[in-house]
Amino acid sequence: MRETLAAIRPLDEEAMAAARARHDRLTKPAGSLGMLEDLSIRLAGLAGACPPPLPTPAAVAVFAGDHGVHAQRVSPWPQEVTVQMVANYLAGGAVINAFAREIGADVHVVDVGVAAEIDAAPGLISAKVRPGTADLAVEPAMTLDEARAAIETGIRIAGQLIDGGAKILVAGDMGIANTTPAAALIAAFTGRDAGEVTGRGTGIDDYTFNLKISVVRSALRRLPADADALRVLAEVGGLEHAAIAGFMLGAAAHRVPLILDGVNTVAGALAAAALHPGVTAALVAGHRSVEPGATAGLAHLGLEPLIDLGMRLGEGTGAVLALPIVSAAVRVLHDVATFDSAGVTEK
Amino acid sequence: MRETLAAIRPLDEEAMAAARARHDRLTKPAGSLGMLEDLSIRLAGLAGACPPPLPTPAAVAVFAGDHGVHAQRVSPWPQEVTVQMVANYLAGGAVINAFAREIGADVHVVDVGVAAEIDAAPGLISAKVRPGTADLAVEPAMTLDEARAAIETGIRIAGQLIDGGAKILVAGDMGIANTTPAAALIAAFTGRDAGEVTGRGTGIDDYTFNLKISVVRSALRRLPADADALRVLAEVGGLEHAAIAGFMLGAAAHRVPLILDGVNTVAGALAAAALHPGVTAALVAGHRSVEPGATAGLAHLGLEPLIDLGMRLGEGTGAVLALPIVSAAVRVLHDVATFDSAGVTEK
Repeated sequence: MRETLAAIRPLDEEAMAAARARHDRLTKPAGSLGMLEDLSIRLAGLAGACPPPLPTPAAVAVFAGDHGVHAQRVSPWPQEVTVQMVANYLAGGAVINAFAREIGADVHVVDVGVAAEIDAAPGLISAKVRPGTADLAVEPAMTLDEARAAIETGIRIAGQLIDGGAKILVAGDMGIANTTPAAALIAAFTGRDAGEVTGRGTGIDDYTFNLKISVVRSALRRLPADADALRVLAEVGGLEHAAIAGFMLGAAAHRVPLILDGVNTVAGALAAAALHPGVTAALVAGHRSVEPGATAGLAHLGLEPLIDLGMRLGEGTGAVLALPIVSAAVRVLHDVATFDSAGVTEK
Repeated sequence: MRETLAAIRPLDEEAMAAARARHDRLTKPAGSLGMLEDLSIRLAGLAGACPPPLPTPAAVAVFAGDHGVHAQRVSPWPQEVTVQMVANYLAGGAVINAFAREIGADVHVVDVGVAAEIDAAPGLISAKVRPGTADLAVEPAMTLDEARAAIETGIRIAGQLIDGGAKILVAGDMGIANTTPAAALIAAFTGRDAGEVTGRGTGIDDYTFNLKISVVRSALRRLPADADALRVLAEVGGLEHAAIAGFMLGAAAHRVPLILDGVNTVAGALAAAALHPGVTAALVAGHRSVEPGATAGLAHLGLEPLIDLGMRLGEGTGAVLALPIVSAAVRVLHDVATFDSAGVTEK
């Protein structure tokens, strides 16, 4: 982890200036591509090159874990749905598989903490730190060593996927009850009240919603005001959130962009940014989830999402939909003719 | 045109009910795909089948025309940029070409009214009704017969592209000064004031902006209150707007979806909807352009855009970025496993 944090560098100003200058020469009114221009300039700064590499191929990693806090009945779904959905991903039957096939991306499933044995299978990365967290409502979700091990797992997987050729990473999550630790992490890292950042996850009734807020609020009371990121993750987080944080740090250290999905990946991003603020240079907000914590977290990170379709599924589904937009933004700097080269008169 | 209008049918309720029922059985929390669920249900209704066909391949048609109102200096760009950009599209050097390559769509350029001779070339559809409109600031932009001919052109091209295998159409535009007739059309069809729906197009100063509003407002005064859609198009429209309206009517008659781009295609859609309100069933709002008229027009049509990235380029660029989202929405109904088939427990 120490080496990874030390490898994260600021954006390359020279490459960004070159991208800005290039945009002004391309056959389109200046600024007419809006957010796509800003994004392509930032990706030039991340890569330290103009144009930056086309973000293809893309690798999606769905980090899966279980949560002791499920015992508090914060979710209407049985815990075994986590492992059942892992099997669904590996069989190619989930929404993330359909989207990734449509968009063109590989899906990897990372067992960083599922509370069941999972047989080896193509597409599965077995990296279980422990079989589900402890119940954060009554005790720390994991030890500091376990949180660190989950972060290291995410870093390692980012490196493996990038060594395997991935030019962009997409983060996803699966874990019944995981929007409870996500809300706790977002409250802790943004300083907002639990009531502001807790959402209804997969869809819960008012009774469960109020219970969920109470669980988050009382768990947060155990955290000292000066708790560092590792302590916050260990006390109120999930194994997938810690691994996702590491995944982001690994991407940033390799100067490879990573697309965030919904509230669980935003929680991971806040943890990553608490470990090294420079990580946000590599992060692209894929979409705006309907979970209020996602919006609060993105605002804290200073990231504006590319799409906003009222989605709340997770798995990386919102992130992968943003991938063609990111690719298109980069391709403009590669392919579009200049006023001079195309013989187009300027105003 | 009469046959096309007669062929437009309402959405198939049975197919929509089947799509709704299917969504509830798929391995995801009910409603968790937000707008994508609504979109896929509507496309099932349009096709009269669940699942509806995957929208591949896609055909983009960029309708190009010139505008007599350019003489009023409503745009800082020289008129010859229209024909220069047509050459740029045909050479593959514009942003729409870069995006279409990235997303996977063919680009066709339709000369429906460019004020210059254009040599035949692969990708060019020569269908010039007249070489640019008359100046709408002082006289009708075209005759009723010319407006009708441009509509018929759009209908014919939709049919040709669909006969050629296109499963979804994407509408784009090119025409220096064309946001002036677009604003006039939007004001006429929505009943809003010129000041509310006129924008800065490619980027104009305050003086030009106020001039543009005056031009639009005074042209609208010539329209009788009971002017029909053809009369509105002829008086204050553009050849590309009329052709785009026909293109949409053709798509709807064939029950093929069509993605709208920015303010010029929205103006065409309003004309099409005035000719037959049923056309909106086939229309998907690709993006929200920064032009105020686009938002006003989409609201009038009852369409919610899929993306909103601060773009204002035209050419079909915002529409084509929405294509993977539309495809992904449809693919869910094809590919995703049900709770039963995947052995996933329900809540």
